[in-house]
Amino acid sequence: MVGSPPPPERMIRFDDGSYFRFPQMRWSVAHFRELMPTTNVSRGLGSPGKLDIALQAGIDQVSFVPLGGDSKMTWRDSLLVNYTDGIVVLHKGHIVYERYFGSLKPEGQHAAMSVTKTFVGTLAAMMVAEGTLDPERKVVDYVPELGKAAFGSATVRQLMDMTTGIRFSENYADPNAEVWAHAAAGNPLPKPKDYTGPRSYYEFLQTVQPEGKHGEAFHYRTANTDALGWVLARVSGKPVAQLLSERIWKKLGAEQDAYMTVDSTGTPFAGGGLNLGLRDLARFGEMIRNQGQYNGQQVVPKAAVADIRKGASKKDFAKAGYTSLTGWSYRDMWWVTHNEHGAFMARGVHGQALYVDPTAEVVIARFASHPVAANAANDATSLPAYDAVARYLMSR
Amino acid sequence: MVGSPPPPERMIRFDDGSYFRFPQMRWSVAHFRELMPTTNVSRGLGSPGKLDIALQAGIDQVSFVPLGGDSKMTWRDSLLVNYTDGIVVLHKGHIVYERYFGSLKPEGQHAAMSVTKTFVGTLAAMMVAEGTLDPERKVVDYVPELGKAAFGSATVRQLMDMTTGIRFSENYADPNAEVWAHAAAGNPLPKPKDYTGPRSYYEFLQTVQPEGKHGEAFHYRTANTDALGWVLARVSGKPVAQLLSERIWKKLGAEQDAYMTVDSTGTPFAGGGLNLGLRDLARFGEMIRNQGQYNGQQVVPKAAVADIRKGASKKDFAKAGYTSLTGWSYRDMWWVTHNEHGAFMARGVHGQALYVDPTAEVVIARFASHPVAANAANDATSLPAYDAVARYLMSR
Repeated sequence: MVGSPPPPERMIRFDDGSYFRFPQMRWSVAHFRELMPTTNVSRGLGSPGKLDIALQAGIDQVSFVPLGGDSKMTWRDSLLVNYTDGIVVLHKGHIVYERYFGSLKPEGQHAAMSVTKTFVGTLAAMMVAEGTLDPERKVVDYVPELGKAAFGSATVRQLMDMTTGIRFSENYADPNAEVWAHAAAGNPLPKPKDYTGPRSYYEFLQTVQPEGKHGEAFHYRTANTDALGWVLARVSGKPVAQLLSERIWKKLGAEQDAYMTVDSTGTPFAGGGLNLGLRDLARFGEMIRNQGQYNGQQVVPKAAVADIRKGASKKDFAKAGYTSLTGWSYRDMWWVTHNEHGAFMARGVHGQALYVDPTAEVVIARFASHPVAANAANDATSLPAYDAVARYLMSR
Repeated sequence: MVGSPPPPERMIRFDDGSYFRFPQMRWSVAHFRELMPTTNVSRGLGSPGKLDIALQAGIDQVSFVPLGGDSKMTWRDSLLVNYTDGIVVLHKGHIVYERYFGSLKPEGQHAAMSVTKTFVGTLAAMMVAEGTLDPERKVVDYVPELGKAAFGSATVRQLMDMTTGIRFSENYADPNAEVWAHAAAGNPLPKPKDYTGPRSYYEFLQTVQPEGKHGEAFHYRTANTDALGWVLARVSGKPVAQLLSERIWKKLGAEQDAYMTVDSTGTPFAGGGLNLGLRDLARFGEMIRNQGQYNGQQVVPKAAVADIRKGASKKDFAKAGYTSLTGWSYRDMWWVTHNEHGAFMARGVHGQALYVDPTAEVVIARFASHPVAANAANDATSLPAYDAVARYLMSR
């Protein structure tokens, strides 16, 4: 939105839903706080940590063959086809590449979408490593209100790895899919007069029904992260946004505050509500790459990072049927490639990504506004591109 | 709001209006972004400027006689009767006193209410001093859309000093007062189905009718600042929040981003939507006290500070009938005391204040959540307290 006021045909409003359509979304992803209530994830009051810059001119010309393709594409071209809003590549902790497009600038926060889950899963893995959260205990032991819901009988570990047996369709094309009830419950706008459903994320979670058995297969379902967020809030006595601030943001030397969208009761959207600066996303990835050490301190326990990197059952993962992610697994809300380099990722719809390649000592943070939500639409021109740049940098 | 979730009797929601009632307001004033959409006022990505701390233990016992009173009160007691949320006193640029109560902490933003206007007026004074804004030109010359409204025929100077002749009652007790139409237009929530009024601040401003003549008397009316914000946005091509960031926040060495509430078209509420950290408010005051110089640069032109300090017509001001502010005037959206020390202030409802005493080299920044909106309710225990502390520090 540009102008005082923006012309009517360029106006983007929250209540008519246009903000999430393409191309309006290219603006919205960098301006969610202007559309809805949010809560701050404070970086604290100190000075930001320094990120050294040592740009590598050759990266634009690095080429790769897209998955399922037969001709080469350059890194530079991949940025355009993936609707990249911003991308930072770190090698051994230095910024070797940084570009911004669309509505994003270095100063400014972008929606992380489901990359949010990875932050929440990492917080959980930290508390497990520290002994304050028992992954084998039942969810109901921490949140009695979930006793009658499908989550109650699952273990915390099953939430963390999304192997719960719950009825929760994320098929946006189906108007009866549970994801719509979830969204309606979490929507901070006043409910329509005839609305009778749950009125917050926590109320929604109490309505989730069982489907199948816990612990048998990976099913990617956002509600698991919201339930995990509730567990973390109950165990720590602090909302997830405050935990993120105290446990991660203040220790990373972040250069910007982040923020989370909230429902009408002030609960942050743990499943997808984080918005943050691109360089701060890269800092987080670099900290994980460094066994949890960064900015002069051990931010995440080494045991938690080891747990993330080892991944989970590939067999359970395969049952979810991701054709572009063969041989992967999902652990602590990270996507683990199990490739030669032991790379692992955070992923969010419309192209949000944090890629960590420990062998090449490379971290890639990307924000995007791809018109197609599912990352299957951009994996072919993203995953081999990350690998090619990592190998290029490793060979320098 | 505390708890996961907060218990029902402690829940504060935007859509039922409870957030602005006492005591709920004591929480809301430090959490507006959790209730409504906002836009960021970025501090940039660099390190904050340092504020030296040299606490003076004696300040709590400084005493004064409240206006109209006959017995003494201590500074310490005045903080409680004024429902102070946070207060910082600077002497010669050092923090000599700093206290927090209620929901506020050093890290966190508090509503500035009409202290917002002072920031907007200062931006205008800067542009006047730089020659990019002509105070004698008519508002319609800058914003043709205001040609048919009462504002169109006023000069920019009349907006800046609130001497326009417009029909705009801020009597909250009168349901037909224009301030309610202004609030409804700016409310970012979806409008009721039967709503036929203006749907943004800019639409509202176009409906304001004339009353009396421009330039004859001071009338404190929030709509003037929103109109001035529109002029600044049009002249600069940037929304007020961006101007605040580029022209002030990034240069002050602010330690936190600030933010502004926005209407449903993304327009920041220039008349009262700013939320900021208490120390950053103090930094702003200190910069003005230093003739606009701070953090190693000339942030505000000296001519603009001189224009603020000289004030405006006391005679025009007296017509507004503020019994606790005898002999004062209003210039560039600052309240000028014309007292012995040449002190001047920014003021916002419920006790928000920035007090600058150039003679004593003292700056006092205060956030509060007094149950009574009008500052007449706390002036008696605030204004003489500021003066007493300034004199105490000057005598050290």
